[in-house]
Amino acid sequence: MAITGVVDGMLASGLERIGHEIDEAFDAYLPVPDDSRARLIEAMRYAAIGGGKRIRPLLLTATADLYGVDREISVRASVAIEAIHAYSLIHDDLPCMDDDELRRGKLTVHKAFDEAIAILAGDSLHALAFEILVDPRVSGDPFVRTELVSTLAKASGHEGMAGGQMMDIVAETSEFDLHTVTRLQQLKTGALLGAAVEMGAILGRVPLDGRAHLRAYARDIGLAFQIADDLLDLKGDEQKAGKALRKDTAQGKQTFVSLLGPERAQDQAQALVDQAIGHLAVHGEEAELLRAIARFIVERDR
Amino acid sequence: MAITGVVDGMLASGLERIGHEIDEAFDAYLPVPDDSRARLIEAMRYAAIGGGKRIRPLLLTATADLYGVDREISVRASVAIEAIHAYSLIHDDLPCMDDDELRRGKLTVHKAFDEAIAILAGDSLHALAFEILVDPRVSGDPFVRTELVSTLAKASGHEGMAGGQMMDIVAETSEFDLHTVTRLQQLKTGALLGAAVEMGAILGRVPLDGRAHLRAYARDIGLAFQIADDLLDLKGDEQKAGKALRKDTAQGKQTFVSLLGPERAQDQAQALVDQAIGHLAVHGEEAELLRAIARFIVERDR
Repeated sequence: MAITGVVDGMLASGLERIGHEIDEAFDAYLPVPDDSRARLIEAMRYAAIGGGKRIRPLLLTATADLYGVDREISVRASVAIEAIHAYSLIHDDLPCMDDDELRRGKLTVHKAFDEAIAILAGDSLHALAFEILVDPRVSGDPFVRTELVSTLAKASGHEGMAGGQMMDIVAETSEFDLHTVTRLQQLKTGALLGAAVEMGAILGRVPLDGRAHLRAYARDIGLAFQIADDLLDLKGDEQKAGKALRKDTAQGKQTFVSLLGPERAQDQAQALVDQAIGHLAVHGEEAELLRAIARFIVERDR
Repeated sequence: MAITGVVDGMLASGLERIGHEIDEAFDAYLPVPDDSRARLIEAMRYAAIGGGKRIRPLLLTATADLYGVDREISVRASVAIEAIHAYSLIHDDLPCMDDDELRRGKLTVHKAFDEAIAILAGDSLHALAFEILVDPRVSGDPFVRTELVSTLAKASGHEGMAGGQMMDIVAETSEFDLHTVTRLQQLKTGALLGAAVEMGAILGRVPLDGRAHLRAYARDIGLAFQIADDLLDLKGDEQKAGKALRKDTAQGKQTFVSLLGPERAQDQAQALVDQAIGHLAVHGEEAELLRAIARFIVERDR
């Protein structure tokens, strides 16, 4: 399987490269000040640097690459979306939310620091994301910068990620059907994954009517991602995942896996990935990394 | 004192008008959806509508008025800054932060709903603020929109309000001197009050070198505001304040009042207000509302 080998290599090097780039950028954005705010910035760095798969930044930069966007620019926009992702994990892990002690194989922020600092570090990463996006270094064209802010704000607020998180809370005490679980996941996880692709297209100055296939790709991998997460929660290795698993069943939550059963869920995830790759047919070799990301999303073990 | 009467009337009608405008705008931005996100949006509305002095919106619109900015536009930008203020109050009131049960004379969001919803409602109002600012209805010029986002994001993040909140946490267990307390308050309260004035100037297309007097005004009223808050904490009426008082002393926190004593603190606040009004000398009658706001800031009882 030489081709798979090449693609796997492309994916592995892509993940490694973006991981370094994101770490370096956060390091530059977040110098620890010599005053009593130090613990706050340390908590932001703890949450943002050196962990996570960086799937959203990889999606954003890979989409931007399709249209020849300067790497420095797409990485900068990626840091913003990763700041939003990092803030959401800090808040989701809090005792009154998912009450998690481990994340990415280390203590969650409220365990390593405390709850008050965790809330403030999340809030500060949230603000940082938008501060980064309006920096002229992201684009000399202010219209592009406002489009990025608009996309990221909508994807993370009550009509996106936070709305999905609210539905997830309701799901613990309700009987959701497949339609509602799909909607929940489209908001909770799909919105931000979709924003990553959309932001890459915005940087590439792809007109609205030229983004339909990218949006379709993003929607499909978003759902596939969540099904894979549900399967990992059921069958995964806590060591590799770096966090507590088997939580959905314990909480009695309806998921794709509980509603479809593990086999059909697995088939569904694979079908979504094939469909996502199909949407990229208009592109040639230059979209190979986006195809590899789609496959990785269901094959990952963490 | 006919003149004072006129000014008081101007302030009272200004406060009443902006209060209605902000309530109406939040009502329009936040329709309650017919799905399981409903409780989240209800919590956002509970926190954002029908309460608070609306000092930041009043400052923003009064500054914009100096430069003939269309009212609909300045109100819209005001809603964004008030969304940030509302989110910060929700998070500050949480048990792991200030642990408050009352705010604006009613239960805090985590008491009226629950902690998880309170965190999400804060996060959602945070995102909404930036979504509002990049709406072309705030300005047809995308550069103006990015300047607004940049100003508000910096003022609310780790280099602004959230950073000040972190210093406030440290203050509970440290002995801060007057210099450090001043810096703390400049971040915690001053940054957002300053952003309100700055955003008004941005909408008014005041060039950077024409904003110095407005920034000086904002800095002075920001400190005066906090000294007045400290004095209210010591001497105020809980009924009128609509929240628990006497907390600074209980927590052993250094404030302007504990460091200067109530008399000198009162004198200092008055001196800052006079100084703030002095910065407006370049303006004539059109700045009368900004002058009235400065006076109100130290004379208010809530």
